[in-house]
Amino acid sequence: MNFIGMNVIGTDQFDRASIDKVLDTAKSFEDVAQQKEKTDLLRGKILASLFYEPSTRTRLSFETAMFRLGGDVLSVTEAMTSSLSKGETLADTAKVIDQYADVIVVRHSDEGSAEEMAVNCECPVINAGDGANQHPTQSLIDMYTMREECGQIDGLTVAMAGDLKYGRTVHSLVHLLKHYKIKFIFVAPASLQIPDKYLKDIEYEQTDNLEEAMAKSDVLYMTRIQRERFLDKNEYKKYKGVYVLTKRMVLNVNEKIKILHPLPRVDEIAKDVDELKNACYFRQVQNGVTVRMALLALVLGKA
Amino acid sequence: MNFIGMNVIGTDQFDRASIDKVLDTAKSFEDVAQQKEKTDLLRGKILASLFYEPSTRTRLSFETAMFRLGGDVLSVTEAMTSSLSKGETLADTAKVIDQYADVIVVRHSDEGSAEEMAVNCECPVINAGDGANQHPTQSLIDMYTMREECGQIDGLTVAMAGDLKYGRTVHSLVHLLKHYKIKFIFVAPASLQIPDKYLKDIEYEQTDNLEEAMAKSDVLYMTRIQRERFLDKNEYKKYKGVYVLTKRMVLNVNEKIKILHPLPRVDEIAKDVDELKNACYFRQVQNGVTVRMALLALVLGKA
Amino acid sequence: MNFIGMNVIGTDQFDRASIDKVLDTAKSFEDVAQQKEKTDLLRGKILASLFYEPSTRTRLSFETAMFRLGGDVLSVTEAMTSSLSKGETLADTAKVIDQYADVIVVRHSDEGSAEEMAVNCECPVINAGDGANQHPTQSLIDMYTMREECGQIDGLTVAMAGDLKYGRTVHSLVHLLKHYKIKFIFVAPASLQIPDKYLKDIEYEQTDNLEEAMAKSDVLYMTRIQRERFLDKNEYKKYKGVYVLTKRMVLNVNEKIKILHPLPRVDEIAKDVDELKNACYFRQVQNGVTVRMALLALVLGKA
Repeated sequence: MNFIGMNVIGTDQFDRASIDKVLDTAKSFEDVAQQKEKTDLLRGKILASLFYEPSTRTRLSFETAMFRLGGDVLSVTEAMTSSLSKGETLADTAKVIDQYADVIVVRHSDEGSAEEMAVNCECPVINAGDGANQHPTQSLIDMYTMREECGQIDGLTVAMAGDLKYGRTVHSLVHLLKHYKIKFIFVAPASLQIPDKYLKDIEYEQTDNLEEAMAKSDVLYMTRIQRERFLDKNEYKKYKGVYVLTKRMVLNVNEKIKILHPLPRVDEIAKDVDELKNACYFRQVQNGVTVRMALLALVLGKA
Repeated sequence: MNFIGMNVIGTDQFDRASIDKVLDTAKSFEDVAQQKEKTDLLRGKILASLFYEPSTRTRLSFETAMFRLGGDVLSVTEAMTSSLSKGETLADTAKVIDQYADVIVVRHSDEGSAEEMAVNCECPVINAGDGANQHPTQSLIDMYTMREECGQIDGLTVAMAGDLKYGRTVHSLVHLLKHYKIKFIFVAPASLQIPDKYLKDIEYEQTDNLEEAMAKSDVLYMTRIQRERFLDKNEYKKYKGVYVLTKRMVLNVNEKIKILHPLPRVDEIAKDVDELKNACYFRQVQNGVTVRMALLALVLGKA
Repeated sequence: MNFIGMNVIGTDQFDRASIDKVLDTAKSFEDVAQQKEKTDLLRGKILASLFYEPSTRTRLSFETAMFRLGGDVLSVTEAMTSSLSKGETLADTAKVIDQYADVIVVRHSDEGSAEEMAVNCECPVINAGDGANQHPTQSLIDMYTMREECGQIDGLTVAMAGDLKYGRTVHSLVHLLKHYKIKFIFVAPASLQIPDKYLKDIEYEQTDNLEEAMAKSDVLYMTRIQRERFLDKNEYKKYKGVYVLTKRMVLNVNEKIKILHPLPRVDEIAKDVDELKNACYFRQVQNGVTVRMALLALVLGKA
């Protein structure tokens, strides 16, 4: 797989070799990401960071990655109310931004929007979330974190808990982890369990008992119940507090389990969990910069 | 004409020599704009990009130009709701920003606002559109595109179609093209024809027949019917679809005509026109960066 | 006092030696601030500029300071409507941004918010205003301006006029000036006079007569009556025009008095005052960049 000029739209496009390539490249950028080294690798290159839908965390992660590599950033957060929407199609917007930027990162509420931009651009487009559809870079970050924290990915038992029905990050991560030898445990109330279509070709269990799952797992991937995906506010309230991880639970059930979370959390991980060495979610944020550095450098042919 | 420290407010201030100077300087930046070369010409210089009115396209064009020249950008898109409006006059805002930036680009809904900023600043101010008044850099880009696509400007027959009554870009462009030997054909329904005041000292025809005009022209300058300039929505709907350029029309009537458009388009140019080599409007976007690089470098004394 | 890694949250943390250190460092950056010299002192460093509450002036001042020192800027102005508020605590936001930035500047409407971020970050946090509470960098800028304009701070008589009850900048400035030999004259209508708690350990007079105070002072520190601090709009209107400084007043009463204002002004300083050499408020804006350069360099250990 040749990354130069490649669009990063969905998890479908990654096989095991290409995932490993991203993770290995990320590893090679660790010293720069942690500022032990500086680089001008992307000096003179411009990232257009287009956030049609607010996601400050993801935006800053990509922009930090670009800055750490010496590049510049065009930042658009006013997209929905701007001239970009003066009746113009997304295809035309893509063709225009293509004249400015060397690489585009796009977040948009519509499924397929990143792909639509990509087919209209010569420069590479990276999907930073297109509605309920895909958010592939998050999954690569999750995997990088697992590898860093556990030594390797093959052989892990991974419990995933929370909103497995609507959780985009869960779906993408399952898709990528299929390329490795993983045992999944899906932890959710029946009505929020993972849709069947994601279960093909994987080894898995399903349960609604978080502690049982934790006892058997190397990694716990917690997720937020996403208010914005529920049309019915009462439905949201019903599920909001269903799983709350506490320090005591971790120490009682499996004190070594690696705890990941794509953030932001609401109350599904109690604050006292932060004190544990195996609470990995803020290191996961740091890994976000590292993995995105790798992706930017790869698609720009500078890795 | 000395460009160092100059404000770029309206088309009135340009004569033929100064237009040529901008276009020639732009030409000299082509390799940098297209990234065949890098430069640090404006390293350490700061552009304040003040968009009181949203115009993401124009904003990104200027910011890209600044980055390609090695400079930094202060970007303000929240101007209308910000501290800049805590009852402060535009004159005071100008005097404050003047302490931060080396050059200011301003977009504002009020006519005369760019001039008002300029008289209160020591640093050069570039008008990126002040209401229905002026947008001089767009016209310079249009002319650069004509020169690049046709070889030279003198001798061209230029058809301008669409909303010639309210279209700011049309008015500014006519004003600048007066300095060259041009034959104009103004194509619009009677009620959207170009106001008489723009017709002084030029050679022109007026018609409502687009194909007739195209047959006789070297350049077709299409414009959008601007919804935001119509108070009456029914009036807008009536004119919206009056001219729609298609690939077939171009091939039938004048297959070599150079097609320009300041963008965004709504539906006045069908998507299949994009396939034609003489569809110039996305190259025009690229030229926008090049010409703005020239202007930034000229007013900062670095061309 | 060691500045490396230090948070700048409130005026309490400054003693005379540390104030002098900031002012002396700022002085050493004058040539860079005024662009007689360039520097790459903060090359590769990232400032996260988080404006939960709009304050474009302050934001641009910090961002300019960072650019003049060669650093990069992550700019967040959409904070209140963004993913940063997807139910996430400010503590978690801090821990996330800490993974991206080398130094954080935060403006927030809640008192104590800057401190809350600081305790959750490893990187230094600078308070750019937390509600009605503190805005320490403004006070350092005011003092730098007094020292530059008057030669030294000790021995000055400083008249402060306007909204002394709610004016955060006045309160912070009094607090810092306590470390020097100053005589204060507080000029306000009785109901907007400075609260007693700020009067401890200082030499002062109180009056509602601006001209009397000016006649006896070296410095006049004018402030805006802040509409946004009044719940009752009629109350605001009553006080809005109570003090209006004119050029004639200055020339009649004390033509040498140095006039400072933290800006924005509404109508408390007439425009004709700008013509006076001793109108210092736009130089004060320039000093804002210089002092913030000093603070950024100091907390990052690069001064």
